[in-house]
Amino acid sequence: MTVGIVGAGQLGRMLALAGYPLGLDFLFLDRSADTPGGQVAPILCGEFTDRRLLRTLASRADVVTFDWENVSVDAFRSLSGTRICPPVAALAASQDRVSEKQLFERLRIPTTRWLAVDSRSDLQRAASAIGMPGALKTRRLGYDGKGQAVIRNMRDLARAWRALGGVPLLYEELVAFDGEVSVIGARSTRGEVAVYPLNGNVHAGGILRLTRAPSGTARLQRTASRYLSRALDHFGYVGILTIEFFVRRGRLIANEIAPRVHNSGHWTIEGAATSQFENHLRAILGLPLGSTAARGHSAMVNIIGRMPAQAALLAMGPVHLHAYGKAPRPGRKLGHCTVIERTARARDRRARDLLRSLAPGIRIP
Amino acid sequence: MTVGIVGAGQLGRMLALAGYPLGLDFLFLDRSADTPGGQVAPILCGEFTDRRLLRTLASRADVVTFDWENVSVDAFRSLSGTRICPPVAALAASQDRVSEKQLFERLRIPTTRWLAVDSRSDLQRAASAIGMPGALKTRRLGYDGKGQAVIRNMRDLARAWRALGGVPLLYEELVAFDGEVSVIGARSTRGEVAVYPLNGNVHAGGILRLTRAPSGTARLQRTASRYLSRALDHFGYVGILTIEFFVRRGRLIANEIAPRVHNSGHWTIEGAATSQFENHLRAILGLPLGSTAARGHSAMVNIIGRMPAQAALLAMGPVHLHAYGKAPRPGRKLGHCTVIERTARARDRRARDLLRSLAPGIRIP
Repeated sequence: MTVGIVGAGQLGRMLALAGYPLGLDFLFLDRSADTPGGQVAPILCGEFTDRRLLRTLASRADVVTFDWENVSVDAFRSLSGTRICPPVAALAASQDRVSEKQLFERLRIPTTRWLAVDSRSDLQRAASAIGMPGALKTRRLGYDGKGQAVIRNMRDLARAWRALGGVPLLYEELVAFDGEVSVIGARSTRGEVAVYPLNGNVHAGGILRLTRAPSGTARLQRTASRYLSRALDHFGYVGILTIEFFVRRGRLIANEIAPRVHNSGHWTIEGAATSQFENHLRAILGLPLGSTAARGHSAMVNIIGRMPAQAALLAMGPVHLHAYGKAPRPGRKLGHCTVIERTARARDRRARDLLRSLAPGIRIP
Repeated sequence: MTVGIVGAGQLGRMLALAGYPLGLDFLFLDRSADTPGGQVAPILCGEFTDRRLLRTLASRADVVTFDWENVSVDAFRSLSGTRICPPVAALAASQDRVSEKQLFERLRIPTTRWLAVDSRSDLQRAASAIGMPGALKTRRLGYDGKGQAVIRNMRDLARAWRALGGVPLLYEELVAFDGEVSVIGARSTRGEVAVYPLNGNVHAGGILRLTRAPSGTARLQRTASRYLSRALDHFGYVGILTIEFFVRRGRLIANEIAPRVHNSGHWTIEGAATSQFENHLRAILGLPLGSTAARGHSAMVNIIGRMPAQAALLAMGPVHLHAYGKAPRPGRKLGHCTVIERTARARDRRARDLLRSLAPGIRIP
């Protein structure tokens, strides 16, 4: 059984590493063989929009999935007769911030106030109606804080327009949040649903730095699971789906939806009975989903921009290192570390040590 | 950093899968690309004794290791200037049952009574001196019960000689044991040593069927660790080393030594803080060794001869499946399953269920 994966980044790599023990084969499509996925499985090299290449991938795979959401919906739709999971409709919704907001509204999932912005005067009107501070974001192709600007005053507004104007945009209120969480769950071809314990996330500069799980109260978990299930059912979804939320006064405010395995779920490799990667594969192959129960208290810290000395890192006590095989570059996700402890308190102490060495300046809330 | 692995069986495959997250690359050498290792990493195809090919492997790898012990010591010794771990002297000792017995004796590790057998009259003398029942074994190239015959009477003796005579042999007493255990540990280039909890093993037809860990008393663990440490020190060993023992009246009797990761340690992938595969790599690369502490109570059941329906297996509750990508063949190890529970009792219940479906007839002692 061969799984075709469009995108050979670290998520694709971890999918392949989770799938080999299930006896699966993998074939990637990405721009270069020297990618995290291309280092661990065969790869077709070319553009994501290359329909001939996509057809080759589809013809050699039993099912096609993707490891990031900025792939071409049109190109996927041209692949008639190919099983593509997750559904392309979910991919399309996640690619456009307006569709994403409309999805949240249709599913009665609370989200931030927002307005579409196509002109300078739209922006002016949106800032007046919603108020400042707010965030101006490109509707498409944003990730890790790219294509975003915070607007606190009229000078910011002018600067943001100069930086981002000319493509479809969205203005939304900037939420003064108490915390950030994400919920990750799988729905299989059989309609079986399994949801992981909530992830408590800390971002800096738009990039995830720290996840702790399980996080949040039982009530928050129930609410997040309910919202996620609505989205899974809405799409007749197959695979892993993630929703990121702000938490304000104990309430969830949806920020983004990602139709894929998610950085905030990397702790599940060692910290859950079944990883998000294995459950994505089980879901799309129609296998029974594995238990999403946490094994202890996990913290995941991203390695960004610079790879630390491996020996020093591994000497810090039991640490699970995941290097993605990428060349260092400022702001680039090069790997992550996971620690697991019996208590949340011991976990936090170890997470603090890891942050001190990997991300000085990031504090545990 | 590239690790060269001679032998691309399931052990090599699991080494590569454990090493990718550390950011390592792998290159195998084996007879065919359609091997468990060749499916997950690049491979040089040819004979293990092909010195040109071994030199190519050595020139492209930072360190060379092996995934089974029936590789050529002479060919390895010809690779001057190559770092080979574990040491070739340990490999040589494990390849010849007489050297192995002499090693145990030199290190004061209790073992069975034995005599070398090179002729029919040697065999007669050995059976008289040691008594029957006994086992006649080829000195070299035995594994999974191959090249062995049990001798209970004179008729067995004649039959065993007809089957095995003509190559150097060894006769040893057949131990009426209460149980079988193995101890697995690592020694790193820095001399750091880490030993895993004891494995309790059940064989049938010379093939391992079930391992449960942690097993045995604290006293047994201490004794086994002491014996293993003696062997590690003796060779200035680097990598994972395994010793298999019989247990009779609470005492350990060494049966075999294996200079490599071992089937009885597969549970460590999910059941220990650091797997035997990762610790082998850490050891040979001079990285700090990872904790060998058990995470709960594990049972590992081998999948032999026939691959069960994946869906049925995964529906049996939380099961970690490891398929090796091998074609089915009677008696062939195709994969293994691991279950982990909070108590030994719950673990045994689940192991019994697994055995019922994977190895009917095998009972938990």
